[in-house]
Amino acid sequence: MSTIIQLSSIAIAVGSFVMAFWLYRWVKAQKSEHERVEQIGRIIEQGANAFLKREYSILARFSGIMAILILLFIPTPIWKGSIQNIIMAISFLAGAVFSALAGKVGIQVATIANRKTAVAAQRGIRPAFLTGFRGGAVMGMAVVGISLLGVTIVYLLTEDATTILAFSFGASSLALFAKAGGGIFTKTADISADLVGKVELGIPEDDPRNPAVIADNVGDNVGDVAGMGADLFDSNVASLAAALVVALSLDGATGGKNVAMVFCFAALGLFASIIGVSTARMGKKDNPTHALNSSTYVTTALYALLTAAATWIFAFPWRLYAAAIIGLLVGTIIGIASDYYTNDEKRPVRNVADSSQSGAAFTILGGVSYGMLSVLPAMVGIALAAFAAYLVCDPLGEGFAMFGIAMSAVGMLSIVGMIISNDAYGPIVDNARGLVEMAHLGEEALDVTDSLDSAGNTVKAVTKGFAIAAAGLTIIALLGAFMSEVNDAALALGMGEQFLNGFDVMNPHVFFGLLVGAAIPAVFSAMLMLGVERNAQRMIAEIHRQFKTIVGLREGVEGVVPEYDRCIDIATVGALKELIPAGLMAIVSTLAVGFIGGVHAIGGFLVGNIVSGLVLALFMSNAGGLWDNTKKYIEAGNHGGRGSEAHKAAVVGDTVGDPFKDTAGPSINTQITVVSLVSSLMASAFLTMSLF
Amino acid sequence: MSTIIQLSSIAIAVGSFVMAFWLYRWVKAQKSEHERVEQIGRIIEQGANAFLKREYSILARFSGIMAILILLFIPTPIWKGSIQNIIMAISFLAGAVFSALAGKVGIQVATIANRKTAVAAQRGIRPAFLTGFRGGAVMGMAVVGISLLGVTIVYLLTEDATTILAFSFGASSLALFAKAGGGIFTKTADISADLVGKVELGIPEDDPRNPAVIADNVGDNVGDVAGMGADLFDSNVASLAAALVVALSLDGATGGKNVAMVFCFAALGLFASIIGVSTARMGKKDNPTHALNSSTYVTTALYALLTAAATWIFAFPWRLYAAAIIGLLVGTIIGIASDYYTNDEKRPVRNVADSSQSGAAFTILGGVSYGMLSVLPAMVGIALAAFAAYLVCDPLGEGFAMFGIAMSAVGMLSIVGMIISNDAYGPIVDNARGLVEMAHLGEEALDVTDSLDSAGNTVKAVTKGFAIAAAGLTIIALLGAFMSEVNDAALALGMGEQFLNGFDVMNPHVFFGLLVGAAIPAVFSAMLMLGVERNAQRMIAEIHRQFKTIVGLREGVEGVVPEYDRCIDIATVGALKELIPAGLMAIVSTLAVGFIGGVHAIGGFLVGNIVSGLVLALFMSNAGGLWDNTKKYIEAGNHGGRGSEAHKAAVVGDTVGDPFKDTAGPSINTQITVVSLVSSLMASAFLTMSLF
Repeated sequence: MSTIIQLSSIAIAVGSFVMAFWLYRWVKAQKSEHERVEQIGRIIEQGANAFLKREYSILARFSGIMAILILLFIPTPIWKGSIQNIIMAISFLAGAVFSALAGKVGIQVATIANRKTAVAAQRGIRPAFLTGFRGGAVMGMAVVGISLLGVTIVYLLTEDATTILAFSFGASSLALFAKAGGGIFTKTADISADLVGKVELGIPEDDPRNPAVIADNVGDNVGDVAGMGADLFDSNVASLAAALVVALSLDGATGGKNVAMVFCFAALGLFASIIGVSTARMGKKDNPTHALNSSTYVTTALYALLTAAATWIFAFPWRLYAAAIIGLLVGTIIGIASDYYTNDEKRPVRNVADSSQSGAAFTILGGVSYGMLSVLPAMVGIALAAFAAYLVCDPLGEGFAMFGIAMSAVGMLSIVGMIISNDAYGPIVDNARGLVEMAHLGEEALDVTDSLDSAGNTVKAVTKGFAIAAAGLTIIALLGAFMSEVNDAALALGMGEQFLNGFDVMNPHVFFGLLVGAAIPAVFSAMLMLGVERNAQRMIAEIHRQFKTIVGLREGVEGVVPEYDRCIDIATVGALKELIPAGLMAIVSTLAVGFIGGVHAIGGFLVGNIVSGLVLALFMSNAGGLWDNTKKYIEAGNHGGRGSEAHKAAVVGDTVGDPFKDTAGPSINTQITVVSLVSSLMASAFLTMSLF
Repeated sequence: MSTIIQLSSIAIAVGSFVMAFWLYRWVKAQKSEHERVEQIGRIIEQGANAFLKREYSILARFSGIMAILILLFIPTPIWKGSIQNIIMAISFLAGAVFSALAGKVGIQVATIANRKTAVAAQRGIRPAFLTGFRGGAVMGMAVVGISLLGVTIVYLLTEDATTILAFSFGASSLALFAKAGGGIFTKTADISADLVGKVELGIPEDDPRNPAVIADNVGDNVGDVAGMGADLFDSNVASLAAALVVALSLDGATGGKNVAMVFCFAALGLFASIIGVSTARMGKKDNPTHALNSSTYVTTALYALLTAAATWIFAFPWRLYAAAIIGLLVGTIIGIASDYYTNDEKRPVRNVADSSQSGAAFTILGGVSYGMLSVLPAMVGIALAAFAAYLVCDPLGEGFAMFGIAMSAVGMLSIVGMIISNDAYGPIVDNARGLVEMAHLGEEALDVTDSLDSAGNTVKAVTKGFAIAAAGLTIIALLGAFMSEVNDAALALGMGEQFLNGFDVMNPHVFFGLLVGAAIPAVFSAMLMLGVERNAQRMIAEIHRQFKTIVGLREGVEGVVPEYDRCIDIATVGALKELIPAGLMAIVSTLAVGFIGGVHAIGGFLVGNIVSGLVLALFMSNAGGLWDNTKKYIEAGNHGGRGSEAHKAAVVGDTVGDPFKDTAGPSINTQITVVSLVSSLMASAFLTMSLF
């Protein structure tokens, strides 16, 4: 049964590639005969590809060094004759390459879909929506297909937990830097373009006179498409890896059934997403938000049915099925809660918009406060999901409680294909809006892309809540994975069976790690935000220079074009310079704590990291989303609309929120995952070589 | 020996009252023959006393209800014939009354000292400094004397750990509401006065035309004097209570020596502070910052010497002495780190001032980023202090590691008398500055109070770091106290000895509590900040109304006075309305988690609360301090000085920072302590009546 399911997983993964390819061809076949759109679109495409090339060449070197370190030291020093090290290094590299591939595919299609969507917007909202959505769906299908395929192949070849963790670590480290680098790039350009354009000069968003406007569009692609793709690729792989590690430790007794269940549920999630994606279209009287949500609901319902059928056919324990469904439900509830705090029809946004009339300080205070409040439902939701999964699955026997939690994370991430499709839709229509504005495609087309864009923002808040919650659950499972890695290593070293029973916070080693671990996400976020700020300052200086020295630019004289590529270059160089230190800090602090305090300290370190990381990630993502929509709400004509005092205050809020929600907030997830995986891989070293 | 030491503690506490009384008389004897100063000073005094009266009458009712609940249910239902309940309820009330008394003493002297300092400023900086400092020192001596006396009396009468915790809980619940209420009052008035006065109308700070200006000065007293006094009273009592609970559990074997050591070290700390306070004066070429710091150093050095002598004389273990000194050292280091992030001669403030030139968004982003960075040294410091205390004291035998950590907290808080003196100095000279401005005492006097005020700000950052770090260590000890309370209750219920060995984060009950607990400080802070915002909106409307309807007010026509009392009233009513929900939320969520998940969930809940609470408190306190000093730095003439774009941006930062650093940030400490104490007191109930 087990092998059949794994081969079916591969088949479904291949099916998702076929679907992705079909969608790609469909998008490419759309009309786009508009010279100026093509011309600007190509500049964006070139900028994005140039950034990706430089970023990947740096990350290739980084991954190479990491692979050599793994080859030499992990799981045991290679001079002790370990063959395993070679497999680990290869697996790590495969994870990194697959993750990079997912990002590349996303950029490839997004930079075509944006042009097609812009041109389609002239024909109306329905064709424009379909083009944008199908562009995003290529990425959704490809990312989930690649991750499922990668994990399945690694498992089939090695059947070894540690090797799967190495694959996941490869994916995570690449995601960490891709997310951070892309996040810094996109927000540098976004902030600079907005501040000089909208605030100082009062010219509209996406005005072609603004030298940073192309860089802003490039940023949407490298940050929100490639970066986000790498991020969710990583979450998906990590949840599968964690579940597989726990399943493998159980399957000694039950003959591979638990491993089979993980693959079966993951594959069915992808299958449901394929169907869900293909049903997405706007009805005649429909709006885009509704169209996006309804295909998500189709996917969710289908998943619940298909997994129930599979549970019945393959006689999986119904309790584990319940755990997966609990995850899916709680994910949805958390998504709805995030929506409450960021939707402009709800009280928080309305209140912040209202108090923005008293000045920017109130915009900030309101956003910070509601962002902090929004932490509660998500934390309680994750806590309840974990607790419920435990209570439901504990009767199945020892170790099943942890497996239940892992399956709950798999359930929550089951519809990740759909989530990525919705998420990638956002930057595509955002870009399309820019192209419509810059190529002067007319007011009607602008209205179409505006309403597509606003739907993207609303849906994004929900999917982001999902992603953070899933990361929370996954990391509990990774904590379990770390413990079983330590126990395996202890057994191999003759330190006795069941060396570690848990992490007692009253143990001073654990407490030491706990406090240090809690500080890391704060420091990590701060480093990224300071990176954005430094970089934006450089770009603002460049924009000022261009407006000062290029004659006729400000006045918009026909034929006078700003030097777009200078701005793209500043964003690129700056992002690449700022992306390494933050990621390295996270890895190095893990090593420091592990070599000082040993495995107990690392246990505490991971817990502290998870706890403060979740709080900060939720706070920053939701506060950022709230500010974004507050600005949009005021721009829609409320409280005086554009140019009013309230609007100026809201722009300050939005500028602060940009790196919150698109640079620091979502990177924290990946940071936590990387730290967890480094810990698992170094388990044996920390066990034998710690100072205290 | 033990009784001698406790009687000496009482003697030293009484000595501190004598010192406080002498200082009070000295301050009162200073000249203040200036009609206008007297007149305005009395309005401030009346406003502060009126607020305190209304606040205390609400808190009296609250404390009464709590006392009745304790009487009925804690430690066991009274109908089961427990006499202990009566003692607990009395002890709780005593804690609350003593805490209120400390706040009242502070207000009493501060509202006299502010006038005396204002008048003394005409004679020069040295007499003005001495008046301000000695006014603060009255509070410092009184608060520490009262807390030591209270704890010693409760201990001598009952010799029971749980009763001491009840006393501490009384002090903490009062502090929670006093800090929150005072914090909301002061920042409501401060923000409103600044926004309308400085930003909208461009009139100077403390301009008598501004209707909110007196409320602002009242706020300094009720927030920074009474609230802060209650807060540090609570920290001090909690650290003593935690150390005594652990010492009592050890002293079965060693005959009261550990308890004696706690009292001895606490009393010597107070003694050293008395000496330190009496040495404080400004030399001829001195500056006030230096004068404040040098008396702190005298206190610290004296404490190290005296406790060494006591350790030698009474043959206390040197390892425990080392733990106390580690606490003191780490506290100092953390203070220095806080200073780095908030001092206007260091890079963070300079950088934020620099980037403020690009607008308020960069002020906010910079402050948030540095605030987050500042979390690291403090967290690592607390972690190292706890870890080092553990490593040093563990060889003394079982349970001594936890006692070492508790002694480390006692050591860190030993110089709390000095800290409070420095802290209370701040609002006194801030008020004096207001009086100088409003009573037109001349430019020279204004310069004097300005430089006194700025020294207050610098020192405040250091002492705040100390207070938060001490709270961190105390709470580790309170976690130990909770565990020993649970084990006592389990033993009494026949559930076996050593029912609880620790809190394993891999236990889903613990993990459930952990995630929920981590959300609470965020929600608590958000509720307070939203309270400030709502209240400030109301007050701004009132200020606008007065400027609109009172003829001649804006122009400053002689004899036209705004209706100061309306603003004081709005701040009072608003603060009292907003203060209960946040505090109640913290208590109710503890009860909910305890009754759902039992003692393990509460263990996790406390840990989550500590971890995220420390991160948020450090972040908010330091970011707020940084913004405050950035504004002051620009106002000193940098980057265009007052009225420049950079200044406008810095004012936004300062306004955001106000509730960060004076309302939410410092209240989190108290919130954590309250939650810890509720848990300890409810231990037996959670043990027997939880749902899962």
